[in-house]
Amino acid sequence: MNAFNFLGAKPATGKTMMLDKGLGLHAVDDLLATAGTHISFAKFGWGTAATMDAELIKAKTAKYRAAGIIPYPGGTLLEVATAAGKLPEFFAEAKELGFTGIEVSDGSTQVGPTTRANVIQQARAAGFYVISEVGKKNPELDHDLSTAERRKMIQADLDNGAHYVILEAREAGKNIGIYDADGNIIGSELDALAAIGVDKLIIEAPLKSQQVALILKYGPNINLGNIAWDEVTALETLRRGLRGDTVGKIE
Amino acid sequence: MNAFNFLGAKPATGKTMMLDKGLGLHAVDDLLATAGTHISFAKFGWGTAATMDAELIKAKTAKYRAAGIIPYPGGTLLEVATAAGKLPEFFAEAKELGFTGIEVSDGSTQVGPTTRANVIQQARAAGFYVISEVGKKNPELDHDLSTAERRKMIQADLDNGAHYVILEAREAGKNIGIYDADGNIIGSELDALAAIGVDKLIIEAPLKSQQVALILKYGPNINLGNIAWDEVTALETLRRGLRGDTVGKIE
Amino acid sequence: MNAFNFLGAKPATGKTMMLDKGLGLHAVDDLLATAGTHISFAKFGWGTAATMDAELIKAKTAKYRAAGIIPYPGGTLLEVATAAGKLPEFFAEAKELGFTGIEVSDGSTQVGPTTRANVIQQARAAGFYVISEVGKKNPELDHDLSTAERRKMIQADLDNGAHYVILEAREAGKNIGIYDADGNIIGSELDALAAIGVDKLIIEAPLKSQQVALILKYGPNINLGNIAWDEVTALETLRRGLRGDTVGKIE
Repeated sequence: MNAFNFLGAKPATGKTMMLDKGLGLHAVDDLLATAGTHISFAKFGWGTAATMDAELIKAKTAKYRAAGIIPYPGGTLLEVATAAGKLPEFFAEAKELGFTGIEVSDGSTQVGPTTRANVIQQARAAGFYVISEVGKKNPELDHDLSTAERRKMIQADLDNGAHYVILEAREAGKNIGIYDADGNIIGSELDALAAIGVDKLIIEAPLKSQQVALILKYGPNINLGNIAWDEVTALETLRRGLRGDTVGKIE
Repeated sequence: MNAFNFLGAKPATGKTMMLDKGLGLHAVDDLLATAGTHISFAKFGWGTAATMDAELIKAKTAKYRAAGIIPYPGGTLLEVATAAGKLPEFFAEAKELGFTGIEVSDGSTQVGPTTRANVIQQARAAGFYVISEVGKKNPELDHDLSTAERRKMIQADLDNGAHYVILEAREAGKNIGIYDADGNIIGSELDALAAIGVDKLIIEAPLKSQQVALILKYGPNINLGNIAWDEVTALETLRRGLRGDTVGKIE
Repeated sequence: MNAFNFLGAKPATGKTMMLDKGLGLHAVDDLLATAGTHISFAKFGWGTAATMDAELIKAKTAKYRAAGIIPYPGGTLLEVATAAGKLPEFFAEAKELGFTGIEVSDGSTQVGPTTRANVIQQARAAGFYVISEVGKKNPELDHDLSTAERRKMIQADLDNGAHYVILEAREAGKNIGIYDADGNIIGSELDALAAIGVDKLIIEAPLKSQQVALILKYGPNINLGNIAWDEVTALETLRRGLRGDTVGKIE
């Protein structure tokens, strides 16, 4: 039974993708007990999963899966595996470790559209839930990517079978993608990308100001990503109209 | 027995109000073992308590109470309940959940002075330790609140039975209340409010620079609030003269 | 067995000094399970150890030692003890609490070169692993310290028996030592100090941008300090070329 249920604040149904950059088992237990029902995806950020013991990773993915959450390794790790010509090994080990999702990205490496399409299709064929990501981790390279190119990539990824497409913002959320150097939303860029269908996107929004702006623009069920583990509950309060920034502003 | 006791650094007696924005039970156990004796109040920030299971909240409040700490739900939640005309239900459930304190605020909603007085008196009558808060969560609305109005509210709250009055600074501590856009103290504003009696105030000071400035100005036992859970020990070192910023500066 | 071992990313051998500013036992267990092998030194920041129960400190140092990590109390605490004329008591209690390292600094107090040399030698004679630190915690005093003076102190500390010398940057990493007010590296200052032998230094680098810059300049095995407990794994991914910033850039 939820506390203060009589207030009638509705649980949000928007997807929340949380960034796990190396949580231990006690922290995961705490997270799931406090906020597990508000998380859809647990991303093991970039290559963090590859610095730990396999048994520990298995224990973590099992906890996430038992809570109804899709755990997946960061796209950077898939990129490193792809560049090394070891994609089959990557899929096999990801499955062995208990990951049920795969992120396909080209944030740190060059990946042609044909390869990208193949990787998405292979991941789907291997039984993974597939999320792709659009954007470059290096700000200069990211700025070179035009809005038209981003739109084209998003559409192609969806056509090739991606369940969702992430708009990249990294852990810091500044000077990248839809955000300017201060982390403010560039409205024209966001509008152009959201026109494809905002319900097919997961918008990385690590900063609270970004979460507030996106919830006020699209409503409480906008899909948000790169949420820090210790901000998941705070985000849920924003979505439910239980924090100052959104009190009285959620339908 | 305290470690390095021979150094004679005195435990602080000033009140520390910690911001709990969704800690799990392992984290609470860690916090109480490392810093429990330095905490007077555990605020379950804004509406976070209303996103969790009631049994979990009960387990947390029990741990805080056993450590001599007064747990209370954020003022935002009381505001939402008041706006919904459900204040009696709010007090009843807060008690049922094990909260022993109540925060009365109008940071996110409009509350007239008569209603505010009534709420404080009702909370006291219901047996709660009562802390009120002065300040608006929206910076523009907060700037509209004059120093004279703040002083009047603080005095009225104390007259109506509030044990302490909090000076609002939110989690971020910038561009609000006694702080400018960079989080620096606006001396004239602070002095005017502190003239009422700084020992009746709890000054929210989430940033370390603010904690240092307030300790150097008022001494180690100034009452400070919105301290992050993982900064409670660091604050205690500032109060005891055991961190660079205050070494040799604490009587 | 490390996860995703087939990728061949090499574990780093550079020293990582982590800042523990008051972790509880569950958090330490999580940290050691996820990242224990990547940590060489656990610094109990400034005077935090002196705010806790001695038995808790013993339990923590035992866990660190069992993981092959050298735990040591912050230099500030040694400075406070030295100023109080209680250095022998400090060494005795540090040993009793299970610390195997000692940090010798003058960041918060004035310590003459003869005293500094004596303290380092006494700490070595008492069987401690000794790390010294060069730099002032007050930015104005720190700016008064010339590059030549820093070089002289580093060399003297090494001659007197310090195993490593830390370049001070505090927890925030800005406007101090080799960093400007934005936390960017002052190249000329760093080069002049590193000329002594970068393998004898531990460079405090609390900000990710600093870690990236130092790894790209000196390679993955540069010794880095003041790493936040929840950034140890992220740093290891930078060292192994498993995060966007260093993918394809690590030999």
